[in-house]
Amino acid sequence: MADQQARTDRDKRPTGIPVIRWEEPPEGPVLVLLDQTRLPAEEAELVCTDAPALVEAIRSLAVRGAPLLGIAGAYGVALAAVRGFDVAEAAGALAGARPTAVNLAVGVRRAQAAHEAALVKTGDPAAAAAAALAAARALHREDAEASARMAAHGLALLDELLPGGGHRILTHCNSGSLVSGGEGTAFAVALRAHREGRLRRLWVDETRPLLQGARLTAYEAARSGMAYTLLTDNAAGSLFAAGEVDAVLIGADRIAADGSVANKVGSYPLAVLARYHHVPFIVVAPMTTIDPDTPDGASIEVEQRPGFEVTEVTAPQVPVTGAGGGIPVAPLGTQAYNPAFDVTPPELVTAIVTEEGAVSPVTAAALAELCARSRQVTIG
Amino acid sequence: MADQQARTDRDKRPTGIPVIRWEEPPEGPVLVLLDQTRLPAEEAELVCTDAPALVEAIRSLAVRGAPLLGIAGAYGVALAAVRGFDVAEAAGALAGARPTAVNLAVGVRRAQAAHEAALVKTGDPAAAAAAALAAARALHREDAEASARMAAHGLALLDELLPGGGHRILTHCNSGSLVSGGEGTAFAVALRAHREGRLRRLWVDETRPLLQGARLTAYEAARSGMAYTLLTDNAAGSLFAAGEVDAVLIGADRIAADGSVANKVGSYPLAVLARYHHVPFIVVAPMTTIDPDTPDGASIEVEQRPGFEVTEVTAPQVPVTGAGGGIPVAPLGTQAYNPAFDVTPPELVTAIVTEEGAVSPVTAAALAELCARSRQVTIG
Repeated sequence: MADQQARTDRDKRPTGIPVIRWEEPPEGPVLVLLDQTRLPAEEAELVCTDAPALVEAIRSLAVRGAPLLGIAGAYGVALAAVRGFDVAEAAGALAGARPTAVNLAVGVRRAQAAHEAALVKTGDPAAAAAAALAAARALHREDAEASARMAAHGLALLDELLPGGGHRILTHCNSGSLVSGGEGTAFAVALRAHREGRLRRLWVDETRPLLQGARLTAYEAARSGMAYTLLTDNAAGSLFAAGEVDAVLIGADRIAADGSVANKVGSYPLAVLARYHHVPFIVVAPMTTIDPDTPDGASIEVEQRPGFEVTEVTAPQVPVTGAGGGIPVAPLGTQAYNPAFDVTPPELVTAIVTEEGAVSPVTAAALAELCARSRQVTIG
Repeated sequence: MADQQARTDRDKRPTGIPVIRWEEPPEGPVLVLLDQTRLPAEEAELVCTDAPALVEAIRSLAVRGAPLLGIAGAYGVALAAVRGFDVAEAAGALAGARPTAVNLAVGVRRAQAAHEAALVKTGDPAAAAAAALAAARALHREDAEASARMAAHGLALLDELLPGGGHRILTHCNSGSLVSGGEGTAFAVALRAHREGRLRRLWVDETRPLLQGARLTAYEAARSGMAYTLLTDNAAGSLFAAGEVDAVLIGADRIAADGSVANKVGSYPLAVLARYHHVPFIVVAPMTTIDPDTPDGASIEVEQRPGFEVTEVTAPQVPVTGAGGGIPVAPLGTQAYNPAFDVTPPELVTAIVTEEGAVSPVTAAALAELCARSRQVTIG
């Protein structure tokens, strides 16, 4: 059971609280999330009893990260089904809660499809709800397995690209166990390098505006005992210029059919810097992040988030004063441009690493072949 | 009088308080600064009665920005002289308060040289102190004049490079009237474009870690009525990719003889992005920023600042809790890499604009010629 899986994984997680778990107390099933907006100051749980509560948790980034959003979306559909709400309505709201990470819609669709198929077959809403829950648990479990395989493929690629070992890896945003059913995507590769004694340093971009690097990646790195150093996103250029970065490893929220990669804003400037300094730029993501229905980077919808994330400084302990719940730093009335993601074109991506292996160079044909191979494996 | 100059310039400044002024109340002369660490929340004065107080104000960034640091340094020498302190000791402490901006040492040396020359000539400490103060006031006045000339040269260059007008300018950190005896360097060019109806938008990088863009440039832009938009430094890549940036304009803290430019950390990544997107990258700085004694970029000492500027979030109103006076965002014990500046090599700089005109392409020979011409003008 994925539920028990999540519980028994506790010791491997950087926090005592699983990032997501399904619970069935007497008063009815709930989805319990680790509230990531309050890390690292506080490890608090957020209990969702229905899909709207989960939609709000997704929008507020209490639960975040492309693979985890897929798992959450699937559980959200199961929650609606088990509690007797309109499943199609819940699925629509969940899939649209945030636009960029394709995994969210994929996870929602998977649980919804399982629900529909069981309903058609059995005519029994309880059986259909159980099917939706089983689909969510399967996705949760598969994501944990995919995570381990991405870590292995990623480290093998690193060792191939950088035979000297002693890797100094720069990462952006957060891509560890807080975004996954397992140990994550890009961060899982660095963690594996660390465990095998081949990580010299993890450079952690703080990742403005919401500081997922400072708050979450530093937190995971510290608890894993990694040698890590935090920097402002600005300072990455100086590290490249000083020859202190051997590779950039990031996750992804959506990979278009042509290999364009949408990821946290700030990824694209790193790709340009990496190219200028002849440093490999590696994207690590599960197959569910590849979206064959999105032809290219221009077709990826990039979420625009509220300006107050930029004009105000927020931290879990900061008393609320501004409109966005933070302390204003810019003059009142200041408009902000605040895209949550950016898009890196395939020609700047050295390799895409998935649980099915790596693609390099990144081309539409190579990605299509990987997807075809993956479907064969799944069918077989 | 530079003193009165500063006062009568009040209406032209974005704040009611001059950024720096010399006062002579009955209890003895003082240097009064606008405390820039408290902007934009509060316009507060900081009164320095001796050089150590000014050194502390420089270190804490209450007074900052390369040209203004030069002016402050010169007034600091005058303050020591007028109050009867050891001038050489004060000059040494002031010149070494921060290492990267050459203007600071240049301003200190100028006042100190005037003091020494007067002392040798007259043997009268009061006359020598008056000479130091006169030197500081002259530097203050000259900087205001240089500012106006840089703005004119800069806008002429922009119009030449971008004949279409309607400039969309991206700037980093703060380079307006808060760093200058006049209206600043790069910001002054944008301001002139705005006044002449040729600025379509000023894109303001927030400039982590100390948010000089969000706090200070947005403040100056708002008070000048410019069309401006704030962004995280991360988001600049998306603007370039979308073709929304016509030119990057920044100031400088030191320009080496080969044309390498030290400026606020984050400038170099912008230069790389600008090159990748074929966008002009223009540096605007007074002649005093060019340091012929520093041969190249590698010879520029880059100030490393405390890690807590990165690991903690600070805002004027935030209650003090962390070691650095802010709210911790990263896990306790997190180490940070926090260079205050980075160095952009001359091949990435489209032009350097000074009060004596622009240099493009940027080469050691062209810079040397500009310096020679400037000295002739000064001597003549």
